[in-house]
Amino acid sequence: MLPTEVKMIIEEMKAERIRGASWLAKKGAEAYRLLAEMMEGEELEKALEEIREEIINVNMTMASLYNLTRFIPITGNPTLVKSKAEEFIKLSEEAKREIGNIGSELIDENEVIITHSFSSAVLEILKSARRKGKRFRVILTESNPDYEGIALARELEKLDVPFEVITDAQIGLFSKKATLALVGADNITQDGALINKAGTYLLALACHDNSVPFYGAAESFKIHPELKSEEVEIIERPYTRQGFRVRNYLFDITPWKYIRGIITEFGVLIPPKEI
Amino acid sequence: MLPTEVKMIIEEMKAERIRGASWLAKKGAEAYRLLAEMMEGEELEKALEEIREEIINVNMTMASLYNLTRFIPITGNPTLVKSKAEEFIKLSEEAKREIGNIGSELIDENEVIITHSFSSAVLEILKSARRKGKRFRVILTESNPDYEGIALARELEKLDVPFEVITDAQIGLFSKKATLALVGADNITQDGALINKAGTYLLALACHDNSVPFYGAAESFKIHPELKSEEVEIIERPYTRQGFRVRNYLFDITPWKYIRGIITEFGVLIPPKEI
Repeated sequence: MLPTEVKMIIEEMKAERIRGASWLAKKGAEAYRLLAEMMEGEELEKALEEIREEIINVNMTMASLYNLTRFIPITGNPTLVKSKAEEFIKLSEEAKREIGNIGSELIDENEVIITHSFSSAVLEILKSARRKGKRFRVILTESNPDYEGIALARELEKLDVPFEVITDAQIGLFSKKATLALVGADNITQDGALINKAGTYLLALACHDNSVPFYGAAESFKIHPELKSEEVEIIERPYTRQGFRVRNYLFDITPWKYIRGIITEFGVLIPPKEI
Repeated sequence: MLPTEVKMIIEEMKAERIRGASWLAKKGAEAYRLLAEMMEGEELEKALEEIREEIINVNMTMASLYNLTRFIPITGNPTLVKSKAEEFIKLSEEAKREIGNIGSELIDENEVIITHSFSSAVLEILKSARRKGKRFRVILTESNPDYEGIALARELEKLDVPFEVITDAQIGLFSKKATLALVGADNITQDGALINKAGTYLLALACHDNSVPFYGAAESFKIHPELKSEEVEIIERPYTRQGFRVRNYLFDITPWKYIRGIITEFGVLIPPKEI
């Protein structure tokens, strides 16, 4: 049995609606650290096996959770568990910064960047480009029904980056006006498909049709070493509009062929055929 | 100077937000009829020249309005004007019914039809298919921000047709589950582009990517005899979300290459290269 405090973190992870894979992995790492502060020896080892299963069950096909559980050894040594959990958090934060640094190099002067939903990796890229003194503007979707785009608009306002908010349905219309597409990723399959907020696939299709380069940005721990795109389990959170139930799968799947590259902390990954 | 009553109809047309090209053309025809009831001779002729300009100005690039003004002769004979205006309305209604009849033939048993926004021509097709005893289901977008999709959901409920409402951003995800796409059209250019509610282009791209046949449905008076796709003027109605201005072009442009055919009252039009 896991301690109540650890269980509460996992419940919080399960209940999460808006924040994505990076946040979930960080929360999971915190649960590991807490466990290591409370147990040792055989009891810890048993609890580590249990927490691995619990964390995987938050989302069976999410690479960030899978990779987190692979990163933490099953051992009775609490110091080791704690230091690995803290290392995971530290590496995640460094990865995000490095993605910002690498990704910002893709942004040319007067670039018109189109994005969808809210990605902390994309925000990091825009911040880094701003620090480098680059001028660019952003087209962003409001991202119905949770309006993550409005959260991004608030951040861009703080950064003094000019932007336009559009409806999700105008992704096609506005991708014609963009010169670069940048999106985050919740998950990347072994065969290179990018799982991100539903609508990302539409943006990729529209960019492809209008010859706008389309990049994803993701820490390497979001790449799943085994998962195939057809195995991805997509969470749904239906809601009601004027008395009608509205289907609401949170993510969609963009195949490799529409992606110019994935910006990671190690560099930009491109499909093997293009190397 | 046009009479106040006629001017009021034109003002109503200009203020219209949701209803599309069929409604506008019908309103325009009603304005013509009213004019013919109030004037004759030289006064009528002058007013007809003025109303032609006013109606075109409601939307400079809308085929239905352009074709209406070409349909009504400029003459001092009020009986002729009235009968042509009434003929236009009657032909429009007959065209809609015939589109329903022809379009419903495209629907096979257990078809899964995806559509976007609300089109009275698409609804007519579904009604006709229902009358013919066909079983099918419909995937429809809520169509943010005016939720025309919810209006369609209400109609389908009355017809006892099973349906699912989705967010606009899930068009890509759900086009994979569809076997046929049917949309309306606000306007069709001389070079075959379909102007319809923003998001239609995304649906066409997703259907193309998933080999789902994509059809538009439109009365022939929505085909513009001269307009090219790059000349289309798209109306915008921006709104505010959580304090941020949201761009809101009402329509987007789907090029011929993604359209399997346009269902008209004369039959299904297909691109010449495919004949």
